[in-house]
Amino acid sequence: MPKNAFYAQSGGVTAVINASACGVIETARRHPDAIGKLYAGRDGIIGALTEDLIDTSLESAADIARLRHTPGGAFGSCRYKLKSLEEHQAQYARLIEVFRAHDIGYFFYNGGNDSMDTAWKVSQLATRLDFPLVCVGIPKTVDNDLAVTDNCPGFGSVAKYVATSMREAGFDVASMARTSTKIFVLEVMGRHAGWIAAACGLASEAEGEAPHILLFPEIPFDPEAFLQRVDDCVKRCGYCAIAVSEGLHDADGRLIAETGTRDAFGHAQLGGVGQVTAQLVRDRLGYKYHWALADYLQRAARHIASRVDVEQAYAVGRAAVEAALAGKNAVMPAIRRLTDAPYAWEIVLADLQHVANTEKKMPRDFISPDGFGITDACRRYLLPLVEGEDAPPFIRGLPDYVRLKNISAARKLAEFSL
Amino acid sequence: MPKNAFYAQSGGVTAVINASACGVIETARRHPDAIGKLYAGRDGIIGALTEDLIDTSLESAADIARLRHTPGGAFGSCRYKLKSLEEHQAQYARLIEVFRAHDIGYFFYNGGNDSMDTAWKVSQLATRLDFPLVCVGIPKTVDNDLAVTDNCPGFGSVAKYVATSMREAGFDVASMARTSTKIFVLEVMGRHAGWIAAACGLASEAEGEAPHILLFPEIPFDPEAFLQRVDDCVKRCGYCAIAVSEGLHDADGRLIAETGTRDAFGHAQLGGVGQVTAQLVRDRLGYKYHWALADYLQRAARHIASRVDVEQAYAVGRAAVEAALAGKNAVMPAIRRLTDAPYAWEIVLADLQHVANTEKKMPRDFISPDGFGITDACRRYLLPLVEGEDAPPFIRGLPDYVRLKNISAARKLAEFSL
Repeated sequence: MPKNAFYAQSGGVTAVINASACGVIETARRHPDAIGKLYAGRDGIIGALTEDLIDTSLESAADIARLRHTPGGAFGSCRYKLKSLEEHQAQYARLIEVFRAHDIGYFFYNGGNDSMDTAWKVSQLATRLDFPLVCVGIPKTVDNDLAVTDNCPGFGSVAKYVATSMREAGFDVASMARTSTKIFVLEVMGRHAGWIAAACGLASEAEGEAPHILLFPEIPFDPEAFLQRVDDCVKRCGYCAIAVSEGLHDADGRLIAETGTRDAFGHAQLGGVGQVTAQLVRDRLGYKYHWALADYLQRAARHIASRVDVEQAYAVGRAAVEAALAGKNAVMPAIRRLTDAPYAWEIVLADLQHVANTEKKMPRDFISPDGFGITDACRRYLLPLVEGEDAPPFIRGLPDYVRLKNISAARKLAEFSL
Repeated sequence: MPKNAFYAQSGGVTAVINASACGVIETARRHPDAIGKLYAGRDGIIGALTEDLIDTSLESAADIARLRHTPGGAFGSCRYKLKSLEEHQAQYARLIEVFRAHDIGYFFYNGGNDSMDTAWKVSQLATRLDFPLVCVGIPKTVDNDLAVTDNCPGFGSVAKYVATSMREAGFDVASMARTSTKIFVLEVMGRHAGWIAAACGLASEAEGEAPHILLFPEIPFDPEAFLQRVDDCVKRCGYCAIAVSEGLHDADGRLIAETGTRDAFGHAQLGGVGQVTAQLVRDRLGYKYHWALADYLQRAARHIASRVDVEQAYAVGRAAVEAALAGKNAVMPAIRRLTDAPYAWEIVLADLQHVANTEKKMPRDFISPDGFGITDACRRYLLPLVEGEDAPPFIRGLPDYVRLKNISAARKLAEFSL
């Protein structure tokens, strides 16, 4: 008898998390002997806790195929972290209760570090309760900080977006610098790791091209060294283009975003490190600046997704279902790099436990000795991840993204408050 | 005997101003009997004043063809306004002197309102001095505010970028709103006219889709009406996506960007109206927000240019040369719309004088009666302008843009200080 399956999206969404969902659903549909209904949690794991299960069998094959090119989280995602089994015992027990009520034998959890940890704990509890459940994690994060896997689906497309945007803005600023803006700052995501700022560095192919300075959370901000570098650059190139990670901090660990701008009510303003650094340049060196804050645009930019990223996102979704069908429990499909150029990769299965308890940092030798750029080793690592284009279809000039029907299955249990 | 030609880019650059340059140069090269060398001003009109003339004949046909898909200003642009003939007499006279020294018989000026005014004044002075010069303006501005022409090359690609970005960010925010960000604000360009904010409205195709609120410089900001609208939207849709023009102001004409955030030194911060409006929502309604500042990214985003925009940019460049060859002086190729759907257009010649002295505003009936959205008439106007894709070639995952050699011709005159 086939068992039903449950799939949920977790944490910040990406341009390609739905490509993973597409891989899961299309693969599950090819195995009706083993997998019955595939339910998706409405708003992620909250959907399981509240027994709000979207019946994906009610969506057409054509609409499921369109997930591959649609950004955001098609079933909804959430920031809701299940902590230790002891602390959140009722929640974990509720998950199993809902899974039991809906005859769910497969649990697919698509997310980052926290989600892999949750998937691993759910698998432990199921074993303890003797409830037959195969738990498989599916990697996703723009932060690129998951262990074991060479890279994370979601990151490559952000990398392509920020590198493209930086190159384009660099052409713009260079043409106007003589009489107008000399400083351009692009603020990108990355609270703890500088992977996205590093990707901005791909925009430059030769000495003097934008960006000229990268500011990483890994390197404590040194204002004087930075200002010296900016001034040298303006004098040499006529302008200076800078990419800064939102998580940039000083030697004491204080976020630079918090040290600068305050709003009219005196509150410190987060998310403004781009402005703080640009303003510092204006105050000290007198150069006119512009700054851009890509914010959600960078992680939602499906129109400029990396083909490699889309393929890998789909592949980890497919591999998750295939692993589950092969009875592999508490695993996560990971990407293993075989060669840099030409780029070759394969999917391997990692133990959830190993992924869950480690955070992958950017190696120090990916950052240049002066702390303001990337090394050739970093370029070799990053370049394949932005390779290839995979434009969505356009209708009337704009990308055509799918909105699913998202119809819930009937509830069988009493209400549960979060 | 053929005469030489001079071409200059002026003001803020766009994703397609180089497509106009491409149209000018390729067309000029097809007429060696009439046009000798085509010089480009380094950094715009400053290049003419300083006699820094880039010899475009030294660039290969292949590189000139690549201009069509390269953003920014390939020869450099500038913000340097020539005022009245009386006030800037020496500059105007110098222009004619340089043109005479380099046997220039054609002057092509690619810019917005100010540049069309300058081109017109140069043509007047040439006539007065009996110097044979054909002056032709070439329209360019992301602001879409030039008179006579139905739309301005440069605007369509910004419109496509902001509508795409808003649609993508809307998918992102919608999927996370239950437990995370409920308010998303995208700040776009537009100091005096709301054309770009209006284009964000194309992202929505049905009631309830992002964006839910547009804030135009044409409509004085009413905080209470805005907050009411935001709250209703969050209660109805679960989230609220907003596009705001940088030029949003209150009933007294004060920029909203200046009323809010101050930096650590107490200076008012410009370019932060997105943050000011988002912060207002958080302070009054308590909703978590994110905001994005597209800044130069929006006008440099050649990777998502509108095909119609690229074609029109090229067409006005080509038509400018053809008009000059036909002896038309003091004109500007303009775009005339023939039909909305299917979209059809043609190039007509406008008198520079009529373009120079009028600014085109967004019609009031393009903004919905409540002031927070666009009307069907506005959609009908905007939709054709974002139609079609024209992706640049990609190499190693990133757009391949050309950097010209830009070699100056030998100087013949004494130095001139600006």
